[in-house]
Amino acid sequence: MALSPSRIEEVRSSFAAQGLMRHFQASLDEIEEGRSVISIPLSEVVTQQHGFFHGGVVGALADTACGYAALSMVPPGKAGLTAEYKINLISPADGDRLVAVGNVLKPGRMLMVCQGDVFIEKNGQRKKCAVALMTLFVMEGLSSI
Amino acid sequence: MALSPSRIEEVRSSFAAQGLMRHFQASLDEIEEGRSVISIPLSEVVTQQHGFFHGGVVGALADTACGYAALSMVPPGKAGLTAEYKINLISPADGDRLVAVGNVLKPGRMLMVCQGDVFIEKNGQRKKCAVALMTLFVMEGLSSI
Amino acid sequence: MALSPSRIEEVRSSFAAQGLMRHFQASLDEIEEGRSVISIPLSEVVTQQHGFFHGGVVGALADTACGYAALSMVPPGKAGLTAEYKINLISPADGDRLVAVGNVLKPGRMLMVCQGDVFIEKNGQRKKCAVALMTLFVMEGLSSI
Amino acid sequence: MALSPSRIEEVRSSFAAQGLMRHFQASLDEIEEGRSVISIPLSEVVTQQHGFFHGGVVGALADTACGYAALSMVPPGKAGLTAEYKINLISPADGDRLVAVGNVLKPGRMLMVCQGDVFIEKNGQRKKCAVALMTLFVMEGLSSI
Repeated sequence: MALSPSRIEEVRSSFAAQGLMRHFQASLDEIEEGRSVISIPLSEVVTQQHGFFHGGVVGALADTACGYAALSMVPPGKAGLTAEYKINLISPADGDRLVAVGNVLKPGRMLMVCQGDVFIEKNGQRKKCAVALMTLFVMEGLSSI
Repeated sequence: MALSPSRIEEVRSSFAAQGLMRHFQASLDEIEEGRSVISIPLSEVVTQQHGFFHGGVVGALADTACGYAALSMVPPGKAGLTAEYKINLISPADGDRLVAVGNVLKPGRMLMVCQGDVFIEKNGQRKKCAVALMTLFVMEGLSSI
Repeated sequence: MALSPSRIEEVRSSFAAQGLMRHFQASLDEIEEGRSVISIPLSEVVTQQHGFFHGGVVGALADTACGYAALSMVPPGKAGLTAEYKINLISPADGDRLVAVGNVLKPGRMLMVCQGDVFIEKNGQRKKCAVALMTLFVMEGLSSI
Repeated sequence: MALSPSRIEEVRSSFAAQGLMRHFQASLDEIEEGRSVISIPLSEVVTQQHGFFHGGVVGALADTACGYAALSMVPPGKAGLTAEYKINLISPADGDRLVAVGNVLKPGRMLMVCQGDVFIEKNGQRKKCAVALMTLFVMEGLSSI
């Protein structure tokens, strides 16, 4: 379902305020209720020792895509905080673009559980390279942590 | 146990070749058999929307510290690959330096299991902010993935 | 894809040899290449303190379903061993039958990554109650652990 | 820190009400603030196909030990619910008794994060066989899920 313009603005502002995502040259490609897609190009700031995308980057992107998928369903005035995530790296992230898709599996009032699927693109071919599960905690505000 | 000079050199070369760690201004503070410590300063490249360290950065640092702890125990000629990791963020990473300590819990021939503990430092005080478990797969070489 | 009769026999023998599954009155409802379905009825041996299925039972069933999904793809003469699993309990397992579906996400030569989806049935209605990720290690035999 | 007699009684009643633990012949060996120890003997109801403790049993015991460690710190009138757990099986659970130790790493108001360490005993020798991380959600009551 499409989000309201004000909620989209809120999500985009939050995304733009993330130094990490800016540094990664990340783009928020899609955002709708319960789902987001984020991607980043290969660059020297995201590599491990073999020149592939770093496993930590794959995890960070999955976490972020899940976070915004969840944030799209958090009631107005509340905030979301990643409680934990787990990621399995199933193929080397050897390519020129990394794409993370976050989907809310369970939109609870206090806890949201999301699945992240990460794909690596190389020469126009897309392959799944990681899968993640993430738990987000819905808060009254940052002071309630 | 102290590593041999050649193994330390190998670990430091690998670390220096990670674009992600270089751009995070990470330093490999300690490396010995089965243990490594990595830290990064707060900078605009590692933040989330509130100016704290991004949860994805916390995960990436834990993963990397665990990876080098494991790599210190991988037999010569073999390589290590993160199979998966899971991280619980237990306190906001609100501070000026992030420190990840990786320890090998189980140095298996094919699989190594590591624990990562991440600390946030603020005004000279250190507090645990995350705990991680990570599985590394020992390979003949990258072609055996 | 359907399995060969000998492989099905091998999987069923292994399943029948699991004291835990027998005790839980578990049935192996489906087994094909890369997929298995296992279910158990509610009984007093699987409950937590409120009379629902115990979270540990939900995890055990997900782990087992993933394990047999993976085992269906392990080459003859080799064995599989759970390296790790992670499970998110997304709804109370309040019902009369628990059904776990295991699917292989990545059939690697050495590591297999599986997803488990667990459903609770109550009065004929089925609802997803948990989702899991699991890593299985393919071994030459039990002595190679 | 020692718990009050009424809180100990509450924890023991809850434990005794778990059909799963009763049928595993589990004993609650220790309970204090933020820590619990639970153990079970080898029996035909807890085995996998090789006669070792089933990986699902190892996970269930870790989850339960963590759950009671957390419950010891939940304020009166509130309840706790496992949100998720992850377990790494680091050695075969080949022995005659399985012992799980749960410790609260972070006693939050809404979320508690616990570590579980599981040991296998064989002929009087104790060896760590698994390590787990678990997140518990603190609720007003079961209706608030």
